[in-house]
Amino acid sequence: MPKINKYVDISEVDREAKKDLIDRHSPFIHCKKTAKAGEPFEVTVKMGNEYTHPDDFDHFIESITLFNGDTKLASASFVPGTLGNEKSHCEVTFNIRPMGKKLNLTAHGYCTKHGIWESTAVVVEVAQ
Amino acid sequence: MPKINKYVDISEVDREAKKDLIDRHSPFIHCKKTAKAGEPFEVTVKMGNEYTHPDDFDHFIESITLFNGDTKLASASFVPGTLGNEKSHCEVTFNIRPMGKKLNLTAHGYCTKHGIWESTAVVVEVAQ
Amino acid sequence: MPKINKYVDISEVDREAKKDLIDRHSPFIHCKKTAKAGEPFEVTVKMGNEYTHPDDFDHFIESITLFNGDTKLASASFVPGTLGNEKSHCEVTFNIRPMGKKLNLTAHGYCTKHGIWESTAVVVEVAQ
Amino acid sequence: MPKINKYVDISEVDREAKKDLIDRHSPFIHCKKTAKAGEPFEVTVKMGNEYTHPDDFDHFIESITLFNGDTKLASASFVPGTLGNEKSHCEVTFNIRPMGKKLNLTAHGYCTKHGIWESTAVVVEVAQ
Repeated sequence: MPKINKYVDISEVDREAKKDLIDRHSPFIHCKKTAKAGEPFEVTVKMGNEYTHPDDFDHFIESITLFNGDTKLASASFVPGTLGNEKSHCEVTFNIRPMGKKLNLTAHGYCTKHGIWESTAVVVEVAQ
Repeated sequence: MPKINKYVDISEVDREAKKDLIDRHSPFIHCKKTAKAGEPFEVTVKMGNEYTHPDDFDHFIESITLFNGDTKLASASFVPGTLGNEKSHCEVTFNIRPMGKKLNLTAHGYCTKHGIWESTAVVVEVAQ
Repeated sequence: MPKINKYVDISEVDREAKKDLIDRHSPFIHCKKTAKAGEPFEVTVKMGNEYTHPDDFDHFIESITLFNGDTKLASASFVPGTLGNEKSHCEVTFNIRPMGKKLNLTAHGYCTKHGIWESTAVVVEVAQ
Repeated sequence: MPKINKYVDISEVDREAKKDLIDRHSPFIHCKKTAKAGEPFEVTVKMGNEYTHPDDFDHFIESITLFNGDTKLASASFVPGTLGNEKSHCEVTFNIRPMGKKLNLTAHGYCTKHGIWESTAVVVEVAQ
């Protein structure tokens, strides 16, 4: 508590409203599967895959945070209206420099009405 | 994942190093047990009770976040050096205005080396 | 640009609406005039002295940041509703550990409708 | 105060050390010159054009904030080590949805040693 909501495969969810709720709140990590140690590496985090989230004053995506394992790499915060108060996929692209042998990336998205949502983890191999 | 480390009663922990690790990373919520609806209400979050945490450049408390249930109320962030690079109880006092019948407060502290730590929850009755 | 609005003494402002605008958006720093090097030191930043600011979903104080000279010490962020959607003095108390011979504290407050506002500076002598 | 350092054209600066200081601390906004109202619009903010900035524990780019006029659109924060402790162009790409007739974009970057730096403004025409 607070609950860390986790993404579940919506193809296994029956109710349309629940599919929408889960998908639009889930951060999805988009990046290459391999990185090169010490080279800049782009990681995009996008909220929702099939469904968009409101950008209403009383209901918006306030932040997206990127972790490597337990370590926070970067965080982006937004105010209501950044997305013109229209339903959108809130999105940010971070540039990081990988260290070690692999990255174990996870993202959290925070909705002002529905709390913290965690992406599925993405493993990136880091070539030396 | 990231792991949400949770406070455990250190009187039940044997090893001194582990007591220290747990205590200095745990946020403790200090506030009155009752609030009045619509009145300002002080909530202090203090990292550690018996043990202090480093404020080293490569190891510091980067943020403290306060939740009511799943809802983020406020967050404070710090840079290394805010506490003079000395071992300290990182601390912040937020002022909120309670709504509803009770608050269910929890805090997260984030250490740049040891990740996210969650306080025990504190319930505050809100008199109307 | 963005404009850094600066506090001006409202006793020298004629129009009531302008007094209100300036005062409720200005951060005021409240702390002791002397500190002891290496000891915890409380600094409260409170928005407004005589006039309160809305906590509406489309108009709220989103953050308060404390600087020592050009150096950020700490920042607090809020979501609309933290103050129960009532007109309030948004407020936060930071604990810092002073270094050097004096602190030159300034605060920035950010309103989602009226931008960045800067407090007058407060000098704190630091006894060794 | 805090000083808002502003970018100046380094081709008009003589001293190499000063060129480096100014360039590596200045946020540069990269985006298209026209946007379409209500459509997602990418804005990249990159610190430095010719010179890179350290990502040392005691000297790093802690945040990048994007403004439209006086309004904050989004902010990204980083911890030391996000860029592998190597000299880099710290960079983030925000996605916004423009409203109104034009955007007047400015960015602030914050260095833990050298304070706030402001980009030159970029005007984007918004086609209806």
